[in-house]
Amino acid sequence: MKVKVHRKAHFNAAHRLFNPDWDDRKNQEVFGKCSNPNYHGHNYELIVAVEGEIDAETGFVMDMKILRKLISTKIEEKLDHKNLNIEVEEFKNLNPTAENIAVIIWNILRKDIGKKLKLEVTLYETPRNYVVYSGQ
Amino acid sequence: MKVKVHRKAHFNAAHRLFNPDWDDRKNQEVFGKCSNPNYHGHNYELIVAVEGEIDAETGFVMDMKILRKLISTKIEEKLDHKNLNIEVEEFKNLNPTAENIAVIIWNILRKDIGKKLKLEVTLYETPRNYVVYSGQ
Amino acid sequence: MKVKVHRKAHFNAAHRLFNPDWDDRKNQEVFGKCSNPNYHGHNYELIVAVEGEIDAETGFVMDMKILRKLISTKIEEKLDHKNLNIEVEEFKNLNPTAENIAVIIWNILRKDIGKKLKLEVTLYETPRNYVVYSGQ
Amino acid sequence: MKVKVHRKAHFNAAHRLFNPDWDDRKNQEVFGKCSNPNYHGHNYELIVAVEGEIDAETGFVMDMKILRKLISTKIEEKLDHKNLNIEVEEFKNLNPTAENIAVIIWNILRKDIGKKLKLEVTLYETPRNYVVYSGQ
Amino acid sequence: MKVKVHRKAHFNAAHRLFNPDWDDRKNQEVFGKCSNPNYHGHNYELIVAVEGEIDAETGFVMDMKILRKLISTKIEEKLDHKNLNIEVEEFKNLNPTAENIAVIIWNILRKDIGKKLKLEVTLYETPRNYVVYSGQ
Amino acid sequence: MKVKVHRKAHFNAAHRLFNPDWDDRKNQEVFGKCSNPNYHGHNYELIVAVEGEIDAETGFVMDMKILRKLISTKIEEKLDHKNLNIEVEEFKNLNPTAENIAVIIWNILRKDIGKKLKLEVTLYETPRNYVVYSGQ
Repeated sequence: MKVKVHRKAHFNAAHRLFNPDWDDRKNQEVFGKCSNPNYHGHNYELIVAVEGEIDAETGFVMDMKILRKLISTKIEEKLDHKNLNIEVEEFKNLNPTAENIAVIIWNILRKDIGKKLKLEVTLYETPRNYVVYSGQ
Repeated sequence: MKVKVHRKAHFNAAHRLFNPDWDDRKNQEVFGKCSNPNYHGHNYELIVAVEGEIDAETGFVMDMKILRKLISTKIEEKLDHKNLNIEVEEFKNLNPTAENIAVIIWNILRKDIGKKLKLEVTLYETPRNYVVYSGQ
Repeated sequence: MKVKVHRKAHFNAAHRLFNPDWDDRKNQEVFGKCSNPNYHGHNYELIVAVEGEIDAETGFVMDMKILRKLISTKIEEKLDHKNLNIEVEEFKNLNPTAENIAVIIWNILRKDIGKKLKLEVTLYETPRNYVVYSGQ
Repeated sequence: MKVKVHRKAHFNAAHRLFNPDWDDRKNQEVFGKCSNPNYHGHNYELIVAVEGEIDAETGFVMDMKILRKLISTKIEEKLDHKNLNIEVEEFKNLNPTAENIAVIIWNILRKDIGKKLKLEVTLYETPRNYVVYSGQ
Repeated sequence: MKVKVHRKAHFNAAHRLFNPDWDDRKNQEVFGKCSNPNYHGHNYELIVAVEGEIDAETGFVMDMKILRKLISTKIEEKLDHKNLNIEVEEFKNLNPTAENIAVIIWNILRKDIGKKLKLEVTLYETPRNYVVYSGQ
Repeated sequence: MKVKVHRKAHFNAAHRLFNPDWDDRKNQEVFGKCSNPNYHGHNYELIVAVEGEIDAETGFVMDMKILRKLISTKIEEKLDHKNLNIEVEEFKNLNPTAENIAVIIWNILRKDIGKKLKLEVTLYETPRNYVVYSGQ
């Protein structure tokens, strides 16, 4: 029996949308106020989903205590209260859109989630905008 | 890398469930108080999801500013503060159930969403009832 | 020890904003699309709060089962799936704004809530607009 | 046109995580405070989704009044305000994790949902932890 | 300038409503299924509000890091994943209704909140039932 | 009949907590990661409440269309997608804590709200932290 289990977490960060191959006018034209050179920020809400068989002994697909700790040490410590463009290695040459942040989070977590389990990352940039990435 | 991006919107409308091929008693029998001839109404919450590859230059699957504007001009202007049965062409011969409203919204938006992108419409009729349609 | 206890409920209804002393143009001018003669509607979310001393025997300010039933029989049955302007006596000569609906609900419930208890009604017309009335 | 319709419900219950094949120390080690022998509890939020073709006469995939009643009589009456470990037959030899509760609910509802319809059960154990089971 | 600052927290617990001065039949009569001798449970959502003057140096009414830690050590550690009737001293002779739990939490926190600050405790027993106590 | 009407809005911004009278070590000591010199950010959710008598002609305490426009032009345009410390005049010498932002918003709106109406500002810095200011 395959079940998909979900854990919510959150982090707050500053960012700006910016393509270094473009000049400021082009960045402003495409990204509008999201490209403000002084940055703006979000309360990112993160949902990490793991799908797999229920373990007969524990009744778990994955121990949520382990998943919660993984999200805390690998994602929240890395991104919470940070400036994504300046302080997060992965975004030095990658635009920190919600899409790209979700992909980066997925890539980090994938290494520590058992190979038999599917992984899916949902990231709310605002309560009205969110993205889902599942490694395809 | 395929990502599914979501944008929330909302509109308020009046409707009644009604099948013109049936007499009033049959409509009342099947649809109950939802068939009240004087109408009732809802705050519809709409989530439009678009799935596709991340564009390398922008980091976007689709510019949310464009999607937001599309929802505003094509859906909100058409449905917000309207009586769906009386004032919306598509429901003159189609029962405005949540299912059918979702299909109509999908059909309208499909024309303006790039062909490489998948489209999915989620419609909350109430916080406790919602439907999802993805064109299948 | 005074505690304020709250119970949430909900009803769906159609309405239009309309002052019968004004002509259609004036109604349209003041109320805009909310005055659509064909009606629009809302999922009204209702919070009824009752404040008073904790009863030493039960540990309750008021038995929530009784409050829930009161809201169901006196408010939901009266307003749910109704056209407020046409079908609800109180709004035949009173504009069904959120403010006035809250006052009407408060007046109805006040009769059945013990005199030592304070009553407060919160009414969400949409998730973004709500009003509070406490009988003052 | 295939649409997936959803109905939310809820129930409150006590449980403890416990594998009867293990001694208390092992249960404590694996399940931590969730294995408290005196139980703890949750407000479970349940979303039942049914997917199928829209019926041309009603505009429904399934009449939500019927689904709501089914959830009420088969699930809420069975689980609401119960101790899952002690009072629910299915958990006498099955650990009442969110995963297993979702599977049990799915198995119960499956019998009363038409064969042409797909069924999916989402169960929130807390606002931060939830699971999805669709019979695979 | 007086501001009221709020911090949300949560804990899960089992309880039953029970007055030891009454026999089982009377308890069942008054409290219904909430008096199940095998317990049921809730995800309690807690909002602690502190009101006072803004400190000119910090711009804070109270450092939220301190309030969060206080709630964690004094309330969550005491109540989370517990059986309130059996394991929490204060409820050995006090019915653990939402009202009484809120009063107990307020009494505990009051000792550690500066005297110039007002304290208010909001406790959600379910998303539909909640109580507020402010020491009056 | 006095009613309190509420309108929700939102803006996203970057900020850091910082007292210019202190050196970096002291700022770090008091404000922790909230003092990150590279900024972090939030989705601020704003609720503006106005309390007063219901106008007999309109049934409104205040026309929500006017309040919505006021919030949009005076608050959202000023704060949305901005760096509060660098780009907002009022915070050049004032620490942009949630408390101080709420006071600034209240002061701005107060000028445009009729004198007979009471004004209250609620500001969510995160879904777990929020403040209320009503001019006292």
